[in-house]
Amino acid sequence: MRRLGIVLAVSLAAGSAWAQGKEPIALRDMGSFHVGGRVIEITGQPIKEIVFTPGGVPAKMDPNGKYQVEQMYVQYFLPQNRKGKLPLLMWHGGGLTGVTYETTPDGRAGWLSYFIRKGWDTYISDAVERGRAGWTDTFKGDALSLPLGDPWERFRIGPPGSWNDDKAKRTTYPGAQFPIEAYAQFMKQGVPRWLTTDDQIVAAYIELVDKVCPCVVMVHSQSGTFGYRVLEARPDKVKALVAVEPTLGGDRNKVESIKTTPILVVYGDNAKDHPRWSKIRQGGVDYAAVLRSAGGSIDVVDLPDVGIKGNSHMMMMDKNNAEIADLIQKWLLDKGLAQ
Amino acid sequence: MRRLGIVLAVSLAAGSAWAQGKEPIALRDMGSFHVGGRVIEITGQPIKEIVFTPGGVPAKMDPNGKYQVEQMYVQYFLPQNRKGKLPLLMWHGGGLTGVTYETTPDGRAGWLSYFIRKGWDTYISDAVERGRAGWTDTFKGDALSLPLGDPWERFRIGPPGSWNDDKAKRTTYPGAQFPIEAYAQFMKQGVPRWLTTDDQIVAAYIELVDKVCPCVVMVHSQSGTFGYRVLEARPDKVKALVAVEPTLGGDRNKVESIKTTPILVVYGDNAKDHPRWSKIRQGGVDYAAVLRSAGGSIDVVDLPDVGIKGNSHMMMMDKNNAEIADLIQKWLLDKGLAQ
Repeated sequence: MRRLGIVLAVSLAAGSAWAQGKEPIALRDMGSFHVGGRVIEITGQPIKEIVFTPGGVPAKMDPNGKYQVEQMYVQYFLPQNRKGKLPLLMWHGGGLTGVTYETTPDGRAGWLSYFIRKGWDTYISDAVERGRAGWTDTFKGDALSLPLGDPWERFRIGPPGSWNDDKAKRTTYPGAQFPIEAYAQFMKQGVPRWLTTDDQIVAAYIELVDKVCPCVVMVHSQSGTFGYRVLEARPDKVKALVAVEPTLGGDRNKVESIKTTPILVVYGDNAKDHPRWSKIRQGGVDYAAVLRSAGGSIDVVDLPDVGIKGNSHMMMMDKNNAEIADLIQKWLLDKGLAQ
Repeated sequence: MRRLGIVLAVSLAAGSAWAQGKEPIALRDMGSFHVGGRVIEITGQPIKEIVFTPGGVPAKMDPNGKYQVEQMYVQYFLPQNRKGKLPLLMWHGGGLTGVTYETTPDGRAGWLSYFIRKGWDTYISDAVERGRAGWTDTFKGDALSLPLGDPWERFRIGPPGSWNDDKAKRTTYPGAQFPIEAYAQFMKQGVPRWLTTDDQIVAAYIELVDKVCPCVVMVHSQSGTFGYRVLEARPDKVKALVAVEPTLGGDRNKVESIKTTPILVVYGDNAKDHPRWSKIRQGGVDYAAVLRSAGGSIDVVDLPDVGIKGNSHMMMMDKNNAEIADLIQKWLLDKGLAQ
């Protein structure tokens, strides 16, 4: 496995003046749109009389008819001094939204403004049935919400058994970088998710890629799967994939078709020994070996192996998030994708 | 009732070079946060084994425990050349999110970028249980989604009976300004809403106002109610209220307490004769009379009476949205709230 020793040296040397995050942002434009989805039809329901506001004027509402479902939300920021050669698409993980990449829970600059400041045309999305994409009760099964303590352990802020309702009794991994003082703010970012909507989400992402790419796609956690599936569907349009702790690799039967797209996979600390993450990580490492043996280009970085310690699954919010963004930016520069 | 003849003359003369919306946007910072909400506890549920991603590694999930609920999402943009003397808060209507004020459905600049370009520190939010605020199934009743044809008539793009599933057979009010070619894109902006969450929404807005105000609050439709309720709760912090087709006025028993805050109410075209909107508008006009007789400052503008014709309930998306934004900006300048 290739390691990124040079990247590390550069990123540590940078000292990241950006860490203060207060340089101005000059945009030639910003905006948003929805993409994808389809129209379904509901029939046979009675007409309702609805008071939309307590004390307001009643309205008749016929629930029969056609409904828009399964669209996705995309917000874009286009810097004046463009340095990324292609648009950068930022896709969030499960139970979250594009907010993942915005201001960190403790109020520092996130990766969205980092990459805008680096000159990337940035498209940040809320996947189907998450956030500003909207949702409908037409999906199979129930929507899942996470109890307060679940991500603490599952996202490796602390080891299994480290959560406690009493703040003072919670423990973390040694040197944990997650801003635990703002854990409650992080939990406010969560949204419910279904477990049955991968196909609808991928369909909308493919529409997005067809609309704004060729591009670089950055994925995290659940969207790792979406990134690989969309890359396999549009290998000519996804020109690089940055996978931050993806929960799955790609399809081993399709490695031939994606071997010209460089891929960077990044894992945080404590993944190798964690009862669940060790399996997830090993799956990604094994997939990388298959892709590489087919002639593909994939770099797998375990952050602690390049001297970056203490990172959780939510490394874009961790206290050293700038250092990891620098590592990714350096990789993109090395691949000739930015100036 | 006072009319804004001068405002009209200025706004028509402006010719709005902004309509192209492509002047650069220079920000000293941008970001987001969540505010408000509370923690609830669920007990007695069995532990689930969940596969988050098809083919992925199973995870145990204990659904018992504490959950974060009822928080609100806020995104902010702080221009370098600040001209608004206070922050401007933009609150959306029912079944929608902050996207209301972003790019119009047909791809033109919306009021968010308009007011940022005018130099306002702008805070745009998704109310509790909408969009990036997240939601839970702990609210009373069902979440409501609108069928495709419902807003066409209820938001006065066309008169009652004008919707047809067949695009070619839909009709509009004469001279309608809504970009009907992008109606399908508009319907992708919709999110489900409960009808029972006003108190939770108001509680979160009050927390927001306590965090970032004194300020100017802009409301639309359902959030008219929230704007008045929050103004009544924090008359010292809401220094001006711009109410775009609010569905209700304020509390007539509380007019004394808010009479130092100037209020602008704007109605679009065809509201006076519409079976439902005529009642909504009359309620707002009657409330304005009560507030005014107590010494309050409230301007009610029916756009067609000042020569601005064809506007729907979604006037921030209408083809002449810049003209209406100019009218609001002029009113704010007249009140001494911006340079």
